[in-house]
Amino acid sequence: MRLVLANPNATAAITDACAILARAAAAPGTDIVGWTNRDGPAVVDSFYADASAARPLTRGLRGLAPPPDAVVLAGFGSYGTAGVKEALEVPVVSIAEAAMVLAVPLCHRFAIVTTAPRMIPYTEDLVDALGFGRRCAAVRAVTLPPLEAAPLAGASEAREIAREIERLRAETRADLVILGGTRLSTCAAALRALTAVPVLEPVACGVAVAEAMVRLGLRPSAVGKFARPPLPWEAYGQ
Amino acid sequence: MRLVLANPNATAAITDACAILARAAAAPGTDIVGWTNRDGPAVVDSFYADASAARPLTRGLRGLAPPPDAVVLAGFGSYGTAGVKEALEVPVVSIAEAAMVLAVPLCHRFAIVTTAPRMIPYTEDLVDALGFGRRCAAVRAVTLPPLEAAPLAGASEAREIAREIERLRAETRADLVILGGTRLSTCAAALRALTAVPVLEPVACGVAVAEAMVRLGLRPSAVGKFARPPLPWEAYGQ
Amino acid sequence: MRLVLANPNATAAITDACAILARAAAAPGTDIVGWTNRDGPAVVDSFYADASAARPLTRGLRGLAPPPDAVVLAGFGSYGTAGVKEALEVPVVSIAEAAMVLAVPLCHRFAIVTTAPRMIPYTEDLVDALGFGRRCAAVRAVTLPPLEAAPLAGASEAREIAREIERLRAETRADLVILGGTRLSTCAAALRALTAVPVLEPVACGVAVAEAMVRLGLRPSAVGKFARPPLPWEAYGQ
Amino acid sequence: MRLVLANPNATAAITDACAILARAAAAPGTDIVGWTNRDGPAVVDSFYADASAARPLTRGLRGLAPPPDAVVLAGFGSYGTAGVKEALEVPVVSIAEAAMVLAVPLCHRFAIVTTAPRMIPYTEDLVDALGFGRRCAAVRAVTLPPLEAAPLAGASEAREIAREIERLRAETRADLVILGGTRLSTCAAALRALTAVPVLEPVACGVAVAEAMVRLGLRPSAVGKFARPPLPWEAYGQ
Amino acid sequence: MRLVLANPNATAAITDACAILARAAAAPGTDIVGWTNRDGPAVVDSFYADASAARPLTRGLRGLAPPPDAVVLAGFGSYGTAGVKEALEVPVVSIAEAAMVLAVPLCHRFAIVTTAPRMIPYTEDLVDALGFGRRCAAVRAVTLPPLEAAPLAGASEAREIAREIERLRAETRADLVILGGTRLSTCAAALRALTAVPVLEPVACGVAVAEAMVRLGLRPSAVGKFARPPLPWEAYGQ
Amino acid sequence: MRLVLANPNATAAITDACAILARAAAAPGTDIVGWTNRDGPAVVDSFYADASAARPLTRGLRGLAPPPDAVVLAGFGSYGTAGVKEALEVPVVSIAEAAMVLAVPLCHRFAIVTTAPRMIPYTEDLVDALGFGRRCAAVRAVTLPPLEAAPLAGASEAREIAREIERLRAETRADLVILGGTRLSTCAAALRALTAVPVLEPVACGVAVAEAMVRLGLRPSAVGKFARPPLPWEAYGQ
Repeated sequence: MRLVLANPNATAAITDACAILARAAAAPGTDIVGWTNRDGPAVVDSFYADASAARPLTRGLRGLAPPPDAVVLAGFGSYGTAGVKEALEVPVVSIAEAAMVLAVPLCHRFAIVTTAPRMIPYTEDLVDALGFGRRCAAVRAVTLPPLEAAPLAGASEAREIAREIERLRAETRADLVILGGTRLSTCAAALRALTAVPVLEPVACGVAVAEAMVRLGLRPSAVGKFARPPLPWEAYGQ
Repeated sequence: MRLVLANPNATAAITDACAILARAAAAPGTDIVGWTNRDGPAVVDSFYADASAARPLTRGLRGLAPPPDAVVLAGFGSYGTAGVKEALEVPVVSIAEAAMVLAVPLCHRFAIVTTAPRMIPYTEDLVDALGFGRRCAAVRAVTLPPLEAAPLAGASEAREIAREIERLRAETRADLVILGGTRLSTCAAALRALTAVPVLEPVACGVAVAEAMVRLGLRPSAVGKFARPPLPWEAYGQ
Repeated sequence: MRLVLANPNATAAITDACAILARAAAAPGTDIVGWTNRDGPAVVDSFYADASAARPLTRGLRGLAPPPDAVVLAGFGSYGTAGVKEALEVPVVSIAEAAMVLAVPLCHRFAIVTTAPRMIPYTEDLVDALGFGRRCAAVRAVTLPPLEAAPLAGASEAREIAREIERLRAETRADLVILGGTRLSTCAAALRALTAVPVLEPVACGVAVAEAMVRLGLRPSAVGKFARPPLPWEAYGQ
Repeated sequence: MRLVLANPNATAAITDACAILARAAAAPGTDIVGWTNRDGPAVVDSFYADASAARPLTRGLRGLAPPPDAVVLAGFGSYGTAGVKEALEVPVVSIAEAAMVLAVPLCHRFAIVTTAPRMIPYTEDLVDALGFGRRCAAVRAVTLPPLEAAPLAGASEAREIAREIERLRAETRADLVILGGTRLSTCAAALRALTAVPVLEPVACGVAVAEAMVRLGLRPSAVGKFARPPLPWEAYGQ
Repeated sequence: MRLVLANPNATAAITDACAILARAAAAPGTDIVGWTNRDGPAVVDSFYADASAARPLTRGLRGLAPPPDAVVLAGFGSYGTAGVKEALEVPVVSIAEAAMVLAVPLCHRFAIVTTAPRMIPYTEDLVDALGFGRRCAAVRAVTLPPLEAAPLAGASEAREIAREIERLRAETRADLVILGGTRLSTCAAALRALTAVPVLEPVACGVAVAEAMVRLGLRPSAVGKFARPPLPWEAYGQ
Repeated sequence: MRLVLANPNATAAITDACAILARAAAAPGTDIVGWTNRDGPAVVDSFYADASAARPLTRGLRGLAPPPDAVVLAGFGSYGTAGVKEALEVPVVSIAEAAMVLAVPLCHRFAIVTTAPRMIPYTEDLVDALGFGRRCAAVRAVTLPPLEAAPLAGASEAREIAREIERLRAETRADLVILGGTRLSTCAAALRALTAVPVLEPVACGVAVAEAMVRLGLRPSAVGKFARPPLPWEAYGQ
């Protein structure tokens, strides 16, 4: 099975880190192909960045030849996810969808830790759009260093998230935590050593859910929301 | 007061028709400047089209010089609205927001008529994202002819919508109708002659709400969701 | 355009202060006529007071001759608002509706500051009744001096509200604040100098929304909730 | 135990009919005292009528001497209910509250049949305000003859309601019906002979819930929403 | 009237204590018969215990001969409540249902205090299942000593709950408290001396609601959710 | 990987049919072990049956030796699911959870087809309990022949479900269907030939989700809802 792991931002170091996590999670026989949205934003850190990512992402993934068996969208956000589902004929799942989906049978209410305070409303909108509002106890943020200094989270972020998790347990009784940003994914292993609360790393969840969909022969419903767009592709611009 | 009326799609005939409606609704002293998203999709008829519109729209509006007093986004959808609010320092309102907002004090539950069955889930997501789920009785569709044949609705669409409104009253008790697509806006006057149910034409609503915001000195809150993006503009791509 | 600004309580000093705010917000050519509910309660500070206001308010406004172009109900509450909409044939909007309506496009979640702890449940009911529950982060209270000592808020209340806003940002991430009581409206200007969070002053919002409705030819839907009452007026008592 | 059964409208024939139903439902030793809101509207058939009822109702019940053991508000609506709870120091329950409350343990989702199509939005607002939205399958209406012709429902209304109940079962799967208007209460017995769906008659429910509260020593909480109004009674007007 | 007060756990001391509370709350002429689920769990302290209680409870109550006039299920939880309603032809009400039902007309938002932190999610699920989510401000826990040491709460638990109530008022503005576990019921009287917030003791509520149902001739609707199971009893196992 | 597929009812023919479906869906290397709840009900067709299944199910699965790598609960319902999660230290997922979870990224709103009209409220409660209310368009029923005549659905049920799906599309715009009962699972393949709407067969979904959880090292959170019950096992009865 060949999965494209598509990073909606243009930072190849994040694609590479996600691909390592994806390969560690994949079943035997699953091939992970990293893809970077080279014309996208450096990072999806705002609605403006989200709007910047969607168009080159949908174009790039529509043009993949040969088409993969499935696409995992490796950003914890929206950035054109529904448009990709319309354009492709294979399973498409974002890591945000996959993580929340797997959280549901495992907990009472999950919390999401995101990468900056300004991403809290963005993430709350995402939770609501997917319909998980009643299962989400809270969205909180840690503060990451600037992207150029450190694209990925490490031990110190793990400790900060662990402290935030203790506050979340005390204040909201959340009993599972999702890492809500790919820059955080690399600290998942370190974090698990610091807390008894289950920590979902979304890239791994995305791979597992995509594999499940491929194996079960599922793809986004073409009879409604995700039907192919009505006009020829060129009518939507380059 | 100078308002830019920004059409998220690339079809100038729609921009022109909306500008006529906008000028008819504007207060004395308000200047309406039409703007077409020339690199955008021919029409926003899918999530793919929505993803296609957002990037050129945010770039084009960020670069307006001199900046207008306010921007009215003249598409009944999402297509980067929040990104435009982050990027500009003036009031920004989409016609979908404006229409739903003005409907609230006028009715028990509004219905939205959109331009194609496949736009019903798109529009339901929009209603939910704005938090108006409890005030929206239903989203329904009429079928428009192809864009090239007739970019704008006319008398026959008005009659079809009038019939749909009667069905909506009987089935859902909606007591106000919003025209959920700019291609429908041109038939608002004809439609009002055919039904006792109030019909909101969103372009006019967008102008009125933008004027209100300018006069009251309001703009999107910069302390939370709509704060300016953190990176230099070029980090988000061209 | 002639707008009646109707104060549901009997305190003329509040009517006068609201009229000053209303005139400052009105467009050129809008005439603001203050109206005091002389048989109403001294202030709407309870459900009992709300019940006391509604009947004389609906009688007084129904009898206005000549009818105005629109009515702005200048109390942050319910007190017969729907009954006034049924009785009149012009736009009617309460300042609570108008403020929440204009807040929606400007923020992620608004907070409301009201005039006494006991008004928090009253205001929460109002938010729910209008369907804005998902957009309202919290309702909080400051404590005003007795009405006879100081009918209107001043600099010290502005400072207290500014402190409450900082708490609200930290605890609820609200990114816009509505002043939920006309006694608070007079401190809006002072408050804006003390906080970066946008502050909506509802009387100004009410004027702007009423002007928009008049210009667009809108009035409450007569086909459903706000249809004219079925019996002759005298059947409802004096 | 002495219960005042307070009819919010001015039609004594309705008070009398309700008192008969109340006495039939009361426990041994409960004394039912009918009370008519003589300055109220002929019937609560609109928001205007609701606003007309509230003020004389709160005045009249506050002045009852000696105070009863509890008050049952015998109208299926709002009309100042919360204000009466603030003003009195005994249990106060409206028949709408009592009926919905008793329906909860008895069914999956209840339906309400009201007295005219225009009362559907009024009743939906009432259901939402009490927080029963998820348990209410639908609100429907039958059409009653004019008040003067027939203040109370009889056999033909019972047959019409029975037909409506069959439609409700088929369309919404409601498994219990509440008669949402005191004019309908008199046909409850006839209706029960026509349908297998349980029918709640709200006056009886109100008596039973009030008796329960008196026996358990409960009254509306005075530490929050229903605390006594802060000003002297005369400050609220006659 | 003969009411069976059915304790879903196997601890007879709890049954006895509940029966005393029930008799104190009952109307004259009501006979309370305690029943202990002897094959059930020692206490319902987990979902596992809930699953352990349901089967012997439904068997035991189905076999009661002669059938009582009503059954009050004296545990603050689920444990087969709907199954008992299906199996019997008399009113069946759980004390959790009864307490929330009576709370609705008495307060703005109630809080529930339960018997251990781990019972908070269990209780939140119960509140949601009954549809009371919008009326419940919070679920909190006190910590009880082990069952064998002290099956029932006393003065020290009353003091601890009183402190928790003060925190709840300050943090959530809850204006009524329900004791969410029969082990807590015995401290209700002591607790009422310590707080101005109304305290609902659910066993008493259950008796009062059951009496109301018997008097009004109500029982769970047999046309939908609570219809008799379709197979012969023995098909469901011993 | 060794998965126990646990049928909550006592009908071995259903276990066998489910095991065939499970093996067809399983990844290479996954071993499916069928388990029948021999002391359970013949079928879970009511809340009484649900209550009958839970206790022997939790006992039987707790005693599995050696413990499997994961448990898939092969009934579309509740029947002690949370209790099994508390009792075991491996992933536990019900097929209802798994199907709804996988539906979320694939559609706008799913519908569930269940096995009898009386199971509609049961299934609606299940959807609500999992928090999927906003994503579920409707629950509908087909009528199955008696269990002894035909434990499993075949071609005629497939045709009936296909007709129901067309009604659902027209009336609710659901764009994906879940088969809500294991008796229906055997007709999934036949059904897919009759409709363009994606059909989720929950047993396959359960296997795929359980495999994902095992591979990712996930199990129900032990820090909250699903912590091990506090008392020794024998305190909960045999």
